[in-house]
Amino acid sequence: MTRNGSSASLPLGFRWGATTAGIKASGKPDVAIAVADQPAIAAAMFTSNQFVAAPILIGQRHLKATEHKMRAVLVNAGNANCATGDPGLEHCRQSCAAMGDAIGCVFDEVFPSSTGIIGVPLPIEKLVAGIPKAVAALGNTPDHADAFAHAIMTTDTKPKVASESFEIDIAGEVKRVSLWGCCKGAGMIGPKLANAAPHATMLVYLFTDIAASASQLKEILHDSVEKSFNAISVDGDMSTNDTVLLLASGASGVALDANITNEFDAALQRVCDSLAYQVVDDGEGVTHVVTLQLTGAASDEAAATMAKSIANSPLVKTAWSSGDPNWGRLLAAAGKAGVPFDPATVTIAIGGLEVFANGVRSAAWDETATHERMSQRHYTIAINFGMGSGTCKFVTCDLTHEYVSINADYST
Amino acid sequence: MTRNGSSASLPLGFRWGATTAGIKASGKPDVAIAVADQPAIAAAMFTSNQFVAAPILIGQRHLKATEHKMRAVLVNAGNANCATGDPGLEHCRQSCAAMGDAIGCVFDEVFPSSTGIIGVPLPIEKLVAGIPKAVAALGNTPDHADAFAHAIMTTDTKPKVASESFEIDIAGEVKRVSLWGCCKGAGMIGPKLANAAPHATMLVYLFTDIAASASQLKEILHDSVEKSFNAISVDGDMSTNDTVLLLASGASGVALDANITNEFDAALQRVCDSLAYQVVDDGEGVTHVVTLQLTGAASDEAAATMAKSIANSPLVKTAWSSGDPNWGRLLAAAGKAGVPFDPATVTIAIGGLEVFANGVRSAAWDETATHERMSQRHYTIAINFGMGSGTCKFVTCDLTHEYVSINADYST
Repeated sequence: MTRNGSSASLPLGFRWGATTAGIKASGKPDVAIAVADQPAIAAAMFTSNQFVAAPILIGQRHLKATEHKMRAVLVNAGNANCATGDPGLEHCRQSCAAMGDAIGCVFDEVFPSSTGIIGVPLPIEKLVAGIPKAVAALGNTPDHADAFAHAIMTTDTKPKVASESFEIDIAGEVKRVSLWGCCKGAGMIGPKLANAAPHATMLVYLFTDIAASASQLKEILHDSVEKSFNAISVDGDMSTNDTVLLLASGASGVALDANITNEFDAALQRVCDSLAYQVVDDGEGVTHVVTLQLTGAASDEAAATMAKSIANSPLVKTAWSSGDPNWGRLLAAAGKAGVPFDPATVTIAIGGLEVFANGVRSAAWDETATHERMSQRHYTIAINFGMGSGTCKFVTCDLTHEYVSINADYST
Repeated sequence: MTRNGSSASLPLGFRWGATTAGIKASGKPDVAIAVADQPAIAAAMFTSNQFVAAPILIGQRHLKATEHKMRAVLVNAGNANCATGDPGLEHCRQSCAAMGDAIGCVFDEVFPSSTGIIGVPLPIEKLVAGIPKAVAALGNTPDHADAFAHAIMTTDTKPKVASESFEIDIAGEVKRVSLWGCCKGAGMIGPKLANAAPHATMLVYLFTDIAASASQLKEILHDSVEKSFNAISVDGDMSTNDTVLLLASGASGVALDANITNEFDAALQRVCDSLAYQVVDDGEGVTHVVTLQLTGAASDEAAATMAKSIANSPLVKTAWSSGDPNWGRLLAAAGKAGVPFDPATVTIAIGGLEVFANGVRSAAWDETATHERMSQRHYTIAINFGMGSGTCKFVTCDLTHEYVSINADYST
């Protein structure tokens, strides 16, 4: 049972809050907190970037120190606390301590995140002053969760939320398991999340009231992220702060066991898929969201390598911006990935229309019709390499003037 | 002794010509030929793209069949003869046969190249009809060489040529060795040229009158290309047709031996460096040419990997377009390459001004002065990783609205 937006049933055992601390120049809410009534079991994945922000390093230490039990999440938007050296680490620790004081837990039960500009010292006084205000605003209604989703935004034009819940009969008693997740991210989106080595601008927070062990959560999160957040790209630029956090409160009274693992896995995957798609759909300057469906590759890995090469090709992405059915650029981008294939066995369909087969432009190719399909905001490009059973689904977007404007905007 | 442009002494033993065959929609010259009076020794490198154009495959076969002895080069612009299947191969063979008939050599002594749109059948009748006209226009003056350089252009705004010559005293007799090269390429520039596996949109033709063996030429060409054409990027999109060809006529009467190899190597490197820089400088929509000087990396390979990651980062390139001194993006782009480094030992200087050191923004950083340096068309970004002795010099450019316009331009 899928529910989207604020009307879904929220997982039990959590409260959310937000406030405006003055970190964002816009004056919009910029501190978001989530608090678990009891220590929640946590699993997290972080950016693979070699250059990581302070909260990534601190968050990893806290997970280890508490054996993956968290009481709170503390997010600030407007400043990434990245490239800030030792002072940045100290600021992050201070903010976690302030959060711990405010809700009555130790500092390392607080999971910190920051997103925003790189290289500018974190305004720690503002953040610390904002924490009690955010705590005073805590609550467990959809409005509270929505406030959290809004306060983590930076260049996002809208909050991104997804939820799922399902019922299960346990010894005659019907119980409900719920998931709610939100995320932020519009540019610097080329995630490659791993279990080690952190850095981030895509921030994802997933909450559920199922009862599970840290190792169970880690495994299921890894699988879901590989097929969702690790299979999207806006500009291919991996952030220094990318983070995905999954917290399980156990408050549903339902344990993650063999009877419901398939249902829970599927629900988590749908939440992640929805959030990942929303990230691309709200990507900086995006006017077309393209789902690449690669099949027939020698392996899944080969398919993924070619999908990323296509998704991050400036020539492919600029052609998409105008609906140009330039399939030659698709083949050239796949070919530069270094994975061998034979054009003679490749078929390409854009929006369901075959454009290339048997090594040449399809005889039936209708350029005007293809352009019309590509003029829609959402469409699929299917490429079958005719070699093996490797597949990859990858969601990406076009490269537009607006993307350049957003990221070139600079005034001294 | 360096000479640039048409005033340089041309290598002996070659003639050049061009004509308008009607392949380019613009009606500009689109067939360029070069003819060696005697079979010239050839070395060539081709794109590493898995998806390659017909002339790349045919050119490789011809080099093998003739044991690297070529009589002629036949280039058409306006159509890449790529993704054209078996008919494309047949068209390429036909054009080589027509060229051979016109100058009196066998078809496999002709080295073919094509550049332009992908996936459209080559207008072979137009090309074949143009060959006798191009042959009638052959000559060995600077104007003839310039005509060749013009006819190979596609989206280039100007021809790109470079030349060198030097004198050597051999047993009391002063002899002159000359090199002249030209190239085309403005978009789809992210070459990775290798000795095998072909495909191309950057086309480079180098002519010299030194006498050398094919193996000598191959080795020297490989070294020169690694440091020049393989160390530039406009958009990181490796073409399906990239080709670098070096032809040596031997007409200078000077053999490439141990006495002059250093001088010749250096001259060839300068010609390649000049042409490669010109490609970036004339890149599609380029307003800033940035030379990345990476030092102190763990290895040259590590430095090159990070340089390419920086050079192909949309966030870095858009910041450059407005002169935004956003050094955080430089570190994030280096960090996503997967090469380990410690920010605490990194220093970054933009246009000679230090912006980052000891893990944080430099105390002495002057944002306005840095922006001014970045407002110049040509400047250098020096990054020292403080780890080892690995270095890489890489020339790249910004990403502008104009690039998007050029490549998104499409009308049904």
